[in-house]
Amino acid sequence: MMPRAVLLDISGVLHNDGVPLPKAVEAVSRLQEASVALRFVTNTSRKTGAAVYAELRQMGFEVERSQIHTAPSVLKRYVQQHGLRPYLLIHDNLIPEFDDIDETHPNAVVICDAEYRFDYAHLDAAFQILQTGAPLLVVGTNRYFHRQGSLHLDAGPFVKALEYAADTQARVLGKPAPGFFQGVLDEVGVDAGEALMVGDDAEADVAAAIQAGLQGCLVRTGKYRHGDERRTLGCRLEKDLGALVESLG
Amino acid sequence: MMPRAVLLDISGVLHNDGVPLPKAVEAVSRLQEASVALRFVTNTSRKTGAAVYAELRQMGFEVERSQIHTAPSVLKRYVQQHGLRPYLLIHDNLIPEFDDIDETHPNAVVICDAEYRFDYAHLDAAFQILQTGAPLLVVGTNRYFHRQGSLHLDAGPFVKALEYAADTQARVLGKPAPGFFQGVLDEVGVDAGEALMVGDDAEADVAAAIQAGLQGCLVRTGKYRHGDERRTLGCRLEKDLGALVESLG
Repeated sequence: MMPRAVLLDISGVLHNDGVPLPKAVEAVSRLQEASVALRFVTNTSRKTGAAVYAELRQMGFEVERSQIHTAPSVLKRYVQQHGLRPYLLIHDNLIPEFDDIDETHPNAVVICDAEYRFDYAHLDAAFQILQTGAPLLVVGTNRYFHRQGSLHLDAGPFVKALEYAADTQARVLGKPAPGFFQGVLDEVGVDAGEALMVGDDAEADVAAAIQAGLQGCLVRTGKYRHGDERRTLGCRLEKDLGALVESLG
Repeated sequence: MMPRAVLLDISGVLHNDGVPLPKAVEAVSRLQEASVALRFVTNTSRKTGAAVYAELRQMGFEVERSQIHTAPSVLKRYVQQHGLRPYLLIHDNLIPEFDDIDETHPNAVVICDAEYRFDYAHLDAAFQILQTGAPLLVVGTNRYFHRQGSLHLDAGPFVKALEYAADTQARVLGKPAPGFFQGVLDEVGVDAGEALMVGDDAEADVAAAIQAGLQGCLVRTGKYRHGDERRTLGCRLEKDLGALVESLG
C-alpha cells in the first residue's frame, strides 16, 4: 500500500559514490508518477542543496530542486523562522547556501562541518556568543568521517567542545533529530503515520524515523551491513529501492 | 600541630597577580625553617617550572627549584616513567619544559593548554594517534579562563572533543586528580595522612586533597568566595597563609 509521503535518503539508497544503484533511477521515476509526496533527505553538510540537485540530475534521477531537503537547508530555515542572526562555523562549500543570512550581532551559533575553520579563534568567538545564552544549532554530532582509508574528525567533537565550555546542549537539526523528519512532513502536509522513510542507515535514517512516528524501510544497499535490521524493531526490510517500489505497486 | 609535609598552592595563596599576600613571604620562611617537607604545587600550564621559580624568587619567596611541582612537570615525569613518546599539544611557553622528550612515532597524546595550536590539523593529527589506543594525558579539564574581563576557552573543551571523537577517557595528571598529590608525596616520602594541602580553590585544591587522603586547608584569599568552605567538608579554614602558619606554631 502506497504511503502519502515517501522520504528517500540519497547516498547509499539512490547511488554509491556517484554511481546510481541498479533500478534506482527507474524507481524514482515511478514514485514521481505515483500520487505520493516524494522528498529526498540528506545530512550532507559539505554540499549546498543546489549541488546535491545538480549531482542527482547528472546521474539521471528525475528530481525537482524543491524536493531536496539537506540538513543545512533545514537548519537555515530554522534560523530564518526564529529570526536568528547566526555566527556561522560552516564548510566553505556551504557559504553560498547561507549568503543571504544576516550575521551581524550574532545571537546564535551554527555548526555545519567547518573543518579547517575549526580553530581556536573561531571556536573562542563562538564561545563568547554562547556565554550570552545564545542557542547552538548543528546538523549532527558525528564523531568522524572516512576519507581515503582513514578516519578524520567530523563536526561532533567540536560541538561537544562548545557544549562543555558553555555548559549548554546543542539543538540537532539533521537526522536523527525527530524535528528533521517533522519539518519535511510539515511542508508537504502529511502526518507522520502516513509517511515512509527509506534509508540504508539503520539508526540515523530508519530507527530515528520510526521514533518520529513515520514508517521506516531499511534497504540492504549502501552502508547496510548484515543484521542491521535487528537494531530497528518494526522496520520494513527490502533488497533495494527498486524492490521497495515494486512491492508498493 | 605541624604536619610532616605541607603542599602550598601558589596563585591566590602566596600572591595575587604577582603581588605577595600580606605575611606570605614570612610564612614561607617559617615553614622552610620548620622540620616539614614543603612543596609548591600549581596547575599552571602556560609556564615552565623554571619560570614559576624565577617569579617566586623575584617576589621575595624563599623557595628551592626542586620544591616546585607544576602539573606539566608531573605529566612529563609520567611520560618518562612510562616510556611514552607523546604528540605534544602544548602552549608555546612550555616548549622548553618538554624539549628533551622524544616525539618521534608518537604513542601518546599530551594536552597542556595549547591555545592557538588547537586547530583542525593538530587535533585531527592527535585523533589519528588516539585511534591506535594511545593514552590521552592532560593537565586538567578546565572549561575556560579569565583574561581582561572575559572568559576564553581553556584546554578542557578540546580534551572533551578528543575524548568524544576517539571514545576514550583522558588521564588527568594535574589537580584535582588524586595521583597529582600522591606523586608529590611519593617524592618526599610522606604518607597522605601526615600531609596538609593549602589552597584557595575549594574544589581543585582542598576537596581534591581530602579525597586523596591529605588534610586540607582552605585560605580566604585569592579566588576564595564567601561560603566556599561548605563545598569541602572536613577542611580547615584560615584567613590566609600567615594565619595558618601562626596557628601551626
